Amino acid sequence: MVNDVIIEKAKKIKLLITDCDGVLTDTGVYYSAQGEELKRFSLRDGMGVERLRKFAGVDAGIMTGENSKIVARRAEKLKITELYLGVKDKITLMKKVLEEKNLTPEELAYIGDDTNDVEVMKFAGLTASPADATKFAKEYADIVVESKGGYGAFRDFVEIIISAKQKV
Amino acid sequence: MVNDVIIEKAKKIKLLITDCDGVLTDTGVYYSAQGEELKRFSLRDGMGVERLRKFAGVDAGIMTGENSKIVARRAEKLKITELYLGVKDKITLMKKVLEEKNLTPEELAYIGDDTNDVEVMKFAGLTASPADATKFAKEYADIVVESKGGYGAFRDFVEIIISAKQKV
Amino acid sequence: MVNDVIIEKAKKIKLLITDCDGVLTDTGVYYSAQGEELKRFSLRDGMGVERLRKFAGVDAGIMTGENSKIVARRAEKLKITELYLGVKDKITLMKKVLEEKNLTPEELAYIGDDTNDVEVMKFAGLTASPADATKFAKEYADIVVESKGGYGAFRDFVEIIISAKQKV
Amino acid sequence: MVNDVIIEKAKKIKLLITDCDGVLTDTGVYYSAQGEELKRFSLRDGMGVERLRKFAGVDAGIMTGENSKIVARRAEKLKITELYLGVKDKITLMKKVLEEKNLTPEELAYIGDDTNDVEVMKFAGLTASPADATKFAKEYADIVVESKGGYGAFRDFVEIIISAKQKV
Repeated sequence: MVNDVIIEKAKKIKLLITDCDGVLTDTGVYYSAQGEELKRFSLRDGMGVERLRKFAGVDAGIMTGENSKIVARRAEKLKITELYLGVKDKITLMKKVLEEKNLTPEELAYIGDDTNDVEVMKFAGLTASPADATKFAKEYADIVVESKGGYGAFRDFVEIIISAKQKV
Repeated sequence: MVNDVIIEKAKKIKLLITDCDGVLTDTGVYYSAQGEELKRFSLRDGMGVERLRKFAGVDAGIMTGENSKIVARRAEKLKITELYLGVKDKITLMKKVLEEKNLTPEELAYIGDDTNDVEVMKFAGLTASPADATKFAKEYADIVVESKGGYGAFRDFVEIIISAKQKV
Repeated sequence: MVNDVIIEKAKKIKLLITDCDGVLTDTGVYYSAQGEELKRFSLRDGMGVERLRKFAGVDAGIMTGENSKIVARRAEKLKITELYLGVKDKITLMKKVLEEKNLTPEELAYIGDDTNDVEVMKFAGLTASPADATKFAKEYADIVVESKGGYGAFRDFVEIIISAKQKV
Repeated sequence: MVNDVIIEKAKKIKLLITDCDGVLTDTGVYYSAQGEELKRFSLRDGMGVERLRKFAGVDAGIMTGENSKIVARRAEKLKITELYLGVKDKITLMKKVLEEKNLTPEELAYIGDDTNDVEVMKFAGLTASPADATKFAKEYADIVVESKGGYGAFRDFVEIIISAKQKV
C-alpha cells in the first residue's frame, strides 16, 4: 500500500492537517440532558503528534466544521497551535493558510473521512482516510490507513510520513 | 442490495423517520450514581440529516419509546423538529403524523432495530435496519444497511435515498 | 446451538438472574479524577427484561460482586426488584434466594462471564455466557450466546427462554 | 503461543508492571469543554489484579507517561500501591524499582503497547502486548495476547502467569 509514489509524496510534507470527527474520534459525540458533553480521543494519536514533530520535523494542525470547546481542550493538551474550528469552507481556508505560511499544496498532508473533506483531499499533496471513512473520502485518499478513526488512524498516517522522511 | 425495487421505493420518499436507540446509538446508555447520564451519537449521522435536506429535499424525524431529554438536545442540534418522545404505540402515531402532513405510507421511510419497530416497518414505503439490528427488525427491513447503529446506519440509509432521488 | 435439551431446560425456568459487569456491560467502567463515574448498559437488554416478564412470565434479577449505586439506578429504571449488590459468595446467596422463593435449581436460569460465576453456573438449571466471556465461564455455560456483554448478550438469553416457553 | 519457553519465564516472575493507556484502556480519553474527564477501564482486568495476588503471589503495578488523577483513582480501587505516574524515562525508573526491591530483570513481567514501552520490553524477563498494540511493541513482546487493550489484555497476561506458576 505504501509504494514509492506515496513515499516520494510524503518526503515533501511540511504540514499535516487533520479533520477531527471521524479521524481523531470514531465520529462519536456524547450528549447529556444539557447537550454535547464529551468526545473520545486516542492517546495513540497524541503520541503521533509528538513523534511527527520530533522525528519528521512536521507540525500537526486540526481543522473541523464543528465549533467545539472540547476539541480546543484536546488541541491544548497536544500543544497544537494550528487549530481551525467551525470551518464551513475547508478548501478556501487551507489555501489561505498555505499562502500565509508560504507553503505549496505539495507540502500539505491531509486526512479526512467525509464529503466535506473531499475538496481539500483533491488539493493536498498527500492524503489519507481512516479504515472506516465514508466512500466519498476513501475515493480521493492516496492511502486508506489500517486503523479506524479514533483508534489510531491519524497515528498510522504519521508513521507513514516519519518512515518516508527517514528513507534516503 | 440496492436493486431497482429499492430505488423506485426511495424515489417516492418525502419523510424519513428514525428510531433512536439502536439506530442513532449503539443501544448504549451511560449511567452514573444519579441515573441516566449520556448517550453516544454519531456526527456522521448528523451530516446525514443535513445532506438529506439539501440533496433529497427530505426532512428527518426521530420517534422513540424512551422519554429522554438527551435525545431532545441531539434533535435540537440537528434542527430536527419532527421529534416524538415516549411513544408507546409507534404505528398509531405514524398514521396520525402522515394524515396531518397529507402523506401516504409510500412516502414514508423508516429505520428501526427492534420488536417495537416492526409494525411501522410493515407500514412504511421503504424500511431499513442497522447491520446489528435484532432478527425481528431485520426480517421486515427492505434493506439491512452496511453500518451498525451509532456507527453510520442512519447515514447509509440517507445516502441510498439521496442516490435514488438523483437517478433519472 | 439451541437444541431440544436447551429447550426442555428453558421451559422450566421461573427466575433469571444475571451477573452485571461483562453481561449487562462490556466489563467497562469509566473513571474520572473523582473515581468511578459511569457504566454503559444496553437498551436492548432493557427491552429484554420487559419482554421476559410479558411473554415468559419470568422475573429478572441482578447479582454482582461490585457494590455500585450505578447498578442500583439501572435496576430501578428496569423495575428490577431482585437486586443483589456486593455479593462475595454468589452460590450461597443463590441457594438462600431459591429457598425463600420456594424454587428448585432447575427453575433458575443464570448468565455470567467470569470465574466468580462458575459455582452458580454449575448449580443453575440453565446457564449462558456472552460471546466474549472468559474461558472459565464458557466452559460451564449451556449456551454461549451470539452477542457480546453490553451488546445484547442478556437479550439473546431472554429470547431463547421466551421462544422455548412458547413452544408446545 | 504459550510454549515451554514462556512457561519457564513466567514461573520466575515476582512483579508485574503494566502500562496504562492502550493496555488497561483502549487508548481512549474522554474530553469535555473543561478538558480530560474520563478513561474507561475493564473490571475483567480488575479481577486479574486480585487473582494474580491470590493465585500467583505476584503484585501488580502501573507505570504510565501520563500524569492523571484518573489512573490514581483506578489504582486505589484495585489496591495497587506500585503506581508510577508521569514517567518520562520508563527504563531508568524500572531499573531503580528492581534495585530497591532486590529483584532481577528475570523476575519482572511487563505489558505495554507503544514505542515508549520498547526499552522496558527489551529489559524485562517476560513481556506481552495487547492484540491491538502498535507494531513497535509487538516486535519485542514475548506474547501478543488474545484480547485488546481495555478489553482484557492485562487479564490474559495474568492468566498465563497464574497458569505457569501452577504447573509443576
